[in-house]
Parts: sequence; C-alpha cells; structure tokens
Amino acid sequence: MSELVLGDIVTALGGELIGSPELTIAHISPLPEATPDSITFLSSARMRSQLAACEAACVITSPALREDAVARGAAIITPDPYLYFARLTQWWAARMRPSVAPGIHPTAVIDASAIIGSGVFVGPGVVIEPGAFIGDGASIGAQCYIGRDARIGSQTRLAPRVSVMFDCSLGERCIVHSGVVIGADGFGFAPTAGQWEKIEQLGAVRIGDDVEIGANTCIDRGALGDTVLENGVKLDNLIQIGHNVRIGAHTAMAGNVGVAGSAIIGSRCQIGGAANILGHLTLADDVHVSVATVVTRSILKPGLYSGSFPCDDNASWEKNAATLRQLHTLRERIRALEKQSKS
Amino acid sequence: MSELVLGDIVTALGGELIGSPELTIAHISPLPEATPDSITFLSSARMRSQLAACEAACVITSPALREDAVARGAAIITPDPYLYFARLTQWWAARMRPSVAPGIHPTAVIDASAIIGSGVFVGPGVVIEPGAFIGDGASIGAQCYIGRDARIGSQTRLAPRVSVMFDCSLGERCIVHSGVVIGADGFGFAPTAGQWEKIEQLGAVRIGDDVEIGANTCIDRGALGDTVLENGVKLDNLIQIGHNVRIGAHTAMAGNVGVAGSAIIGSRCQIGGAANILGHLTLADDVHVSVATVVTRSILKPGLYSGSFPCDDNASWEKNAATLRQLHTLRERIRALEKQSKS
Amino acid sequence: MSELVLGDIVTALGGELIGSPELTIAHISPLPEATPDSITFLSSARMRSQLAACEAACVITSPALREDAVARGAAIITPDPYLYFARLTQWWAARMRPSVAPGIHPTAVIDASAIIGSGVFVGPGVVIEPGAFIGDGASIGAQCYIGRDARIGSQTRLAPRVSVMFDCSLGERCIVHSGVVIGADGFGFAPTAGQWEKIEQLGAVRIGDDVEIGANTCIDRGALGDTVLENGVKLDNLIQIGHNVRIGAHTAMAGNVGVAGSAIIGSRCQIGGAANILGHLTLADDVHVSVATVVTRSILKPGLYSGSFPCDDNASWEKNAATLRQLHTLRERIRALEKQSKS
Repeated sequence: MSELVLGDIVTALGGELIGSPELTIAHISPLPEATPDSITFLSSARMRSQLAACEAACVITSPALREDAVARGAAIITPDPYLYFARLTQWWAARMRPSVAPGIHPTAVIDASAIIGSGVFVGPGVVIEPGAFIGDGASIGAQCYIGRDARIGSQTRLAPRVSVMFDCSLGERCIVHSGVVIGADGFGFAPTAGQWEKIEQLGAVRIGDDVEIGANTCIDRGALGDTVLENGVKLDNLIQIGHNVRIGAHTAMAGNVGVAGSAIIGSRCQIGGAANILGHLTLADDVHVSVATVVTRSILKPGLYSGSFPCDDNASWEKNAATLRQLHTLRERIRALEKQSKS
Repeated sequence: MSELVLGDIVTALGGELIGSPELTIAHISPLPEATPDSITFLSSARMRSQLAACEAACVITSPALREDAVARGAAIITPDPYLYFARLTQWWAARMRPSVAPGIHPTAVIDASAIIGSGVFVGPGVVIEPGAFIGDGASIGAQCYIGRDARIGSQTRLAPRVSVMFDCSLGERCIVHSGVVIGADGFGFAPTAGQWEKIEQLGAVRIGDDVEIGANTCIDRGALGDTVLENGVKLDNLIQIGHNVRIGAHTAMAGNVGVAGSAIIGSRCQIGGAANILGHLTLADDVHVSVATVVTRSILKPGLYSGSFPCDDNASWEKNAATLRQLHTLRERIRALEKQSKS
Repeated sequence: MSELVLGDIVTALGGELIGSPELTIAHISPLPEATPDSITFLSSARMRSQLAACEAACVITSPALREDAVARGAAIITPDPYLYFARLTQWWAARMRPSVAPGIHPTAVIDASAIIGSGVFVGPGVVIEPGAFIGDGASIGAQCYIGRDARIGSQTRLAPRVSVMFDCSLGERCIVHSGVVIGADGFGFAPTAGQWEKIEQLGAVRIGDDVEIGANTCIDRGALGDTVLENGVKLDNLIQIGHNVRIGAHTAMAGNVGVAGSAIIGSRCQIGGAANILGHLTLADDVHVSVATVVTRSILKPGLYSGSFPCDDNASWEKNAATLRQLHTLRERIRALEKQSKS
C-alpha cells in the first residue's frame, strides 16, 4: 500500500487537525497496536490512560480528550471519533484497494431481454435470466445467478456466488456477500396422511436500499405475500430468514440468527448472534435480543431481552442442570416448608 | 399475472363449488389480506369470526363451516381446506410461473461418460463429471456441480449453485435449493500427539424420493457406510447433517438444526429450528423436538420434547441465571430445612 | 471397488500382522457391521465382548487385545488402532478413488498476472483474479472464485464452489469443502442517528497449513488486522468465524459454531456443535466447550465447560421453565425460611 497524508484525510472527512497536514500515514490501526506510521482512534474516555503510551502518528478523538491527545502528538478532533473512523475506512478502501472497471465479461450468460444499466460490472460466469434488471453502476460478482424478472438496484454490489431468485428485488447501494441465497422457497407443507404436501411459495423477497447481507445467509421468498427487508437492514453471516418475515429499517442481526416464518420485527432492533425468533410474532422497534436467546412470544416494549443458560465448568453445570429438571418440585417443597413454618 | 376462473380450479382439484364457476381469481391470499379478486382458505373453526368481514371472491373451507362461508359469497367445500390450498398453490405455480424448457445449455461442461435422460434441463455453467447419471425430466440449475458417479433421479429439480459430490444420489421428484452441499466429507479425525489425523470419508449420501432440501443446507457423506435420508424428508435452510446420520421417512426439520454424526432419527419426526441432536443416539418415530432444544440422549417414546431457556427482560434473566449457577446448593439448603423441620 | 490384500496394508502402514498376507479385503467396516471380506478395528477394551462374534477377515487392535483378536482370526497389532484406522482410510482412498489429473480446464478464467504452480488442477468455470498465487500441486475445484492477490498453498485442495476473497491466504495441504466463504467482510458498523455507517474491513484472512474447513463455513476478513487460523485447525460445516478472531493450532470445532469478532481461542481447544463464543474474549489452550454452550466470559483454565438447558418431555420442561423465571425469588424464600428456622 502507498501512503496518504493527514491533510488529505481532513480535506475529505472534516474534523479539526492539530499537527502537520504533511504527516504521512501508512496504516489505520487499533489503539493498542498503533505504530508511528498509523492513524488510530479513541472514542471512549475510559481508554484515556492508553493514550500517553500510544505511538500513533495521529489520534482521532473527541473534544473531551483534546488535551490528552495533543500532549502526545497530532490529532483530529471530531464529535464522534468512531463514526469518523468508519468513514475513514471507507475513504481508505476507495483509494487503496484495486477498483473494478465496469464491463460485461464475455463468459457471462445474459438473456437478451434482461436490462443492464450503464456502468455495470458483470463478472465471469454470471447468469442473468430473462426480464432481469440491473441498475446503473451495479456490480454483479463472478458466478452469480440473477433469476428471471429479478431487480438489482443501482450501485448495489453482489460478491461472487450469490443467488437472487425469480422475481426478487434489491434496492440501491446494497452489499451482498458470497454464498447468499435470496428467494429460495419458504418452508411450507400441508400434512396429509403422515406425509407432506408442498405449498408452492408464490411470493418473493423485497429488499430496500442500503441493506448489507452476510456470507451464506438465506432469505426465503414469501408464501403468498413477500418477505421484506426495509432500508438499512444489516445481516451478518449464516442467518436464516423465513418466509413472510418483515424486518424494519436499520435493524441489525449478528451471525447464525434464525427468524421463523411471518415474524414481524421492528426498526432499529439488534439481534445477538445465534438468537432465534419464532414465527408469527411481533418485535417492537428498538428491541435488543442477547446472544442465543430464543424469543417465543411477541415483545412489545423496547429494551434488552435475554435467555441463555449460563456457562460453567462441566461438573457444576451437570449438578445444576440435573437439579433444574426437578425445579418445579423444589418450589413445591419450599411451599410446604413455608406452610409449616407459619403453622 | 393473468386470471383464472373458479371452475378451472374445481375441475383440476375437486371439491364442491358453491357459486359461479365463471368468477375470476387474480390472487391466492391469506384470509386477513383477501381482496375481492382473491381466493382464500379457512381451515380452523377458531377463525370463523373473521369470515363475515372477508372480502375474498371465494373461500375454501370445510363442511363444518359451509353455512358461514356461503352466507358471504362463493365457496369451495372440501374435507381438508389446508391441503386443498397446498394443491392450489401447486396448480397455480404450474400455470402462472414461467416454465423452463428442456435442453442442455452450451456452456455446461458434461463429461462424455455421463448419462443424461430425456427431457432434462441443464443450465449454464453446470459441471457434470464422469459417470454421473441424470434421470428423465430432471432439472439441473445454473452453476450446479454434479460429481463423478453421482445420480440425480427423474423429475428432481436442483436450483442454481448446488453441489452433489462424488458417488452421492438423489431419488425422484426431489427439490434442492440453492447453495446446498450434498456429500462433503464428514468431520472425522483421530487424535495423535495433540494433532489430528484425517479419517477419509469413504461412504456417500443416499437420498430417497420426494425429499426437499433448503438453501445452504449441508449433508455430509458417511465415514464407512452412507448417510441416508429416506423418502419424503423435508429439510429447511442452513441445516447440518453429520456423517452416517439416518433420517426416517417424512421427517421434517426447521432451519439451523444440527444433527451430529451417526444419529438415527425415526420417521415422521418434527425437529424445531436451531435444535441440536447429538451423535450416536436414536429418536423413535413421531418424536417432536421444540425449537433450540439440545437432545443429548436417545428418545424412545413419541411425544414433544423441549429444553430452551425462557426469554426474559435482561435484568430478570441476569438474576435468575446467576441463581441458576447455585441451584444445586439451593437444593441442599431446602433439604437441610426439611430435616430441621422434621426434627 | 477392487480388492486389496493384508500384506499391502502392513507394508504401507506398519503394525504386526498375525495371519496370511494374502487375505483379500474388500471393505473397511465398523466392528458391528463387519463381513468376512472386511477389515475393522477395535480400539477400546470395553468392546472386547463384541470381538468373538465379529466376522471380519482382520481386526486392527492393540497389544492388550492381542489374544482375543488372534482367537478369532487375522489381526494387525498396533499401539493406536484408531490412528491406524485413520491412516488406513487415507491409504484406501488414495488407491480406490479416482484421482484428478493436473491441468487447467479451458473454461477457467485466469488473469494473466496470476501465478499457477506446477501440477495444479483448475476445474471448469473457475475464476482466478489478478495477482493470485496457486502453489504446486494445489487443486482448485470447479466454479471456485480466487480473489485478487489471494494465495493458495501447495497441495491444498478446494472443493467446487469455494470463495477465497481478495488478499486472503491458505497454507499448504489444506482441505476446503464446497460453499466455504473465506474473506467476506466482517460485521462492522458505527451507529449514527439510528442508522449504520459501514466500517470497511481492511484486514484479510490468514490460514495456516493442514487446516480443514467444512461446507458452507464462513471466515470473515479482519477489520484492521487479520483473522487468523493457525496450523492444523479443523472446522466442521456451517461455522461462523467473525473478524479478527484468532484460532490456535489444532483446535477443532463442530458444526454450527459461532465465534464473534476478536475472540482469541487457544490451541488444541475442542468446541462442541452449535456452541457460541462471544467477541473480545480469550479461551486458554486445551479448553473444551460442550454442545450449544454460550461462552460469555474468558476461560483461562483448561477443562470442560458446559451450559445448555437439559432436554425433557415438554410438560416437565414447561413447569420447570416457568419456575426458572422465578428462581431468584425462590432463593429469597429459602433465605427467609433459613432466618426463621435459626430464630
């Protein structure tokens, strides 16, 4: 990687620069690993004590920590250092990473009825079916599959090996990682004489703008209506979204989460890794769910909800788990003791 | 989508039509969202109260609800409305969705020794290795990989981007969704001096007829014998089936389930989402397992089994979880109190 | 499959052969399923009783079981029969399975600046981007994607449909199964006014030698530094490894495990299926975690740790789970009883 100078950063992203704009930066580093050619950030006053020993060329920090920062060298002062850091990574990636030139690879198989916008990249081995639409400036990574009548919004980027099935749509500026499957059939069957009759999934998936979807995550198509992800939803890897689910704007879910069919999840929710949300229930806006929690009922009040078994050394766990299987009986015994003590 | 008339539906699927066979239908809708050009269904008497206000052109319902249904408009009377609805979705999809014409795409790479049946579709970018067999009327979606000597039964449909590895087989009329991996190596290693020596997985995967496998689900090949899914098994997305597992006929599993190696699961079982079944154990026929339950021992009696930590507001959970770590001690204290009260 | 004789096995793998080296073997079988043309193994004295009835042509066993083994027929005596069995499967697979001849398939799309070693196999539909490096004897399965500047070590084998993204590297002799995604973006966002600002993930993934990665597993690239898997790590299917995670040498993880960002996991750990390890914590070397356990704090002492809710029949579970939500109150009631009994 080549080097950048502090002045360029502040010109692009703002903030008050204390120190020389000519100072060169070769890395963005976390505070504890910063070297004399790094820029780093300090967002929490709790980490103030680490500042003095930090060797970074420049520290991005808040007005409250200005004096400490300046005491040790160059600084960029900004109200939200973590947000500034996020934007710096974007600016950095745009300048330092090789960019992909628009163009259609000759090995892509694109139906003549598909509409491809201007400035689009279509990688090798991509398949685009009849009636599909690819918006301006979109990037379709190698070996992706874009089904019939599917729509990819402008500036949306699909990594290699993504499937977008028949009739599903993504908005603008989405990022979809490798292995994602959008629009496989929801899991619907009618029981009949000990067997299962398939319910064809006639809906689709509708995804808003600025949505990011992690690797190998699956979003099933709706049974009759659509599965919907509103604007700004962020999904991590290996998440399962069942049919007819609706996820409100700017809700984020960590890896391995499962959301069963027809759950309605509010806006700005945060769902911890490996949590499971049952079907046909509702989560209000701003509900946070802890890691590995199983949500079996609607949650109508914002707040943090939890429910995982505490980890312990195995011998202790075994004793407690065995007792847990008799917990109801223990309550009865406490009741009996209470009655006795009152008599 | 174009429109269909009620008479066509009843001609194809049976049932008693009350009302005009000329009535046109543009949508299949859930009861609460039905519009005057919809057909809907009502399978449970509990929802009877919603019937009067329903605007659907036609309601599929049971003899028990005939009078209520007729009071509001056209109806199809059938003993099992939910099953009728399932069959209606199939009939609808077959008529309303674009169908795929048989044919081998010129970009598919098919070994000369592979056998391709009649009426087969092979999509762009598909790879079919030596000795593979594709049955009549099967459909191999774009970018699939069919390994050496693998067998795909007639009428089976693979979505794009499915891997069927060396020597594995699928029966007839199966549906496999995008990203599925059938026949990766099972997880087997012998420990040796703090390291692991690979146990080559010499078995394969054998899948019966009418099996459906959800997106990005993985079914590992057996270590010495085979991993087996019997007829009519239905697996949702992101499920892990370990080596040497056997799943009985018509068993259904929801998303994110894990089944460890050599587990033997009966017929007509239902496994809730994110449940985990340990290895080398047996589940009888007709065992139902709730969401997120960890099955650590064999279950030899049909019934419903559960075991997830109840979800609560975080403060309550923290207090209860902390106490849970001392549960065994609480039992000792109750015992002590009981002794004392008897003395 | 053709047949092999016992003498060939002992010549290749060592051990003391008791019986005729001309005895032919057609299968490797587990002890209970062994037939007269099988070789099997017995590693535990607990299974000694099964030996007499075993029909296998030859039993691999330890010196301690020599007499029992010899009493029934041919045997190979070796200090670690399970390890011998593992090596036998490798030898068997190398001789009995069709091998892949080196060569570059004409449909592969390989940038002219990529470096391809000698004796490499590159399958149909593979895409290899500029600057990538493929070591001698590596095998890149059909439809894989090798990103810009990625490095695949010599003798490493990628199954079909694997993604190795920009700048990521794998060591030598690794095995990567179908659907794996190495180097998708880690899940990093800065909150801003109820929305999320993407933190570009500027690190990569560095994988050591002799690592095996199961189907559809995802290993995210680091945010600033790298995500690291040391030598000999073994990951099962559908595992999620977050950004900046470090996994020590020879650690093994079963299916569906999730490891959140920046967790540091020691060497020779064993993580049970569906366990979850939170971010920014440390596991010492030789920590074992049971199935479905949620690790929320660092574990600094080797040992076995557990924490899953015990499975029960649903009625019992419901009663115990309901009581669990009042567990803290129960403790208060016990305290009150204790006070009373002392007064």
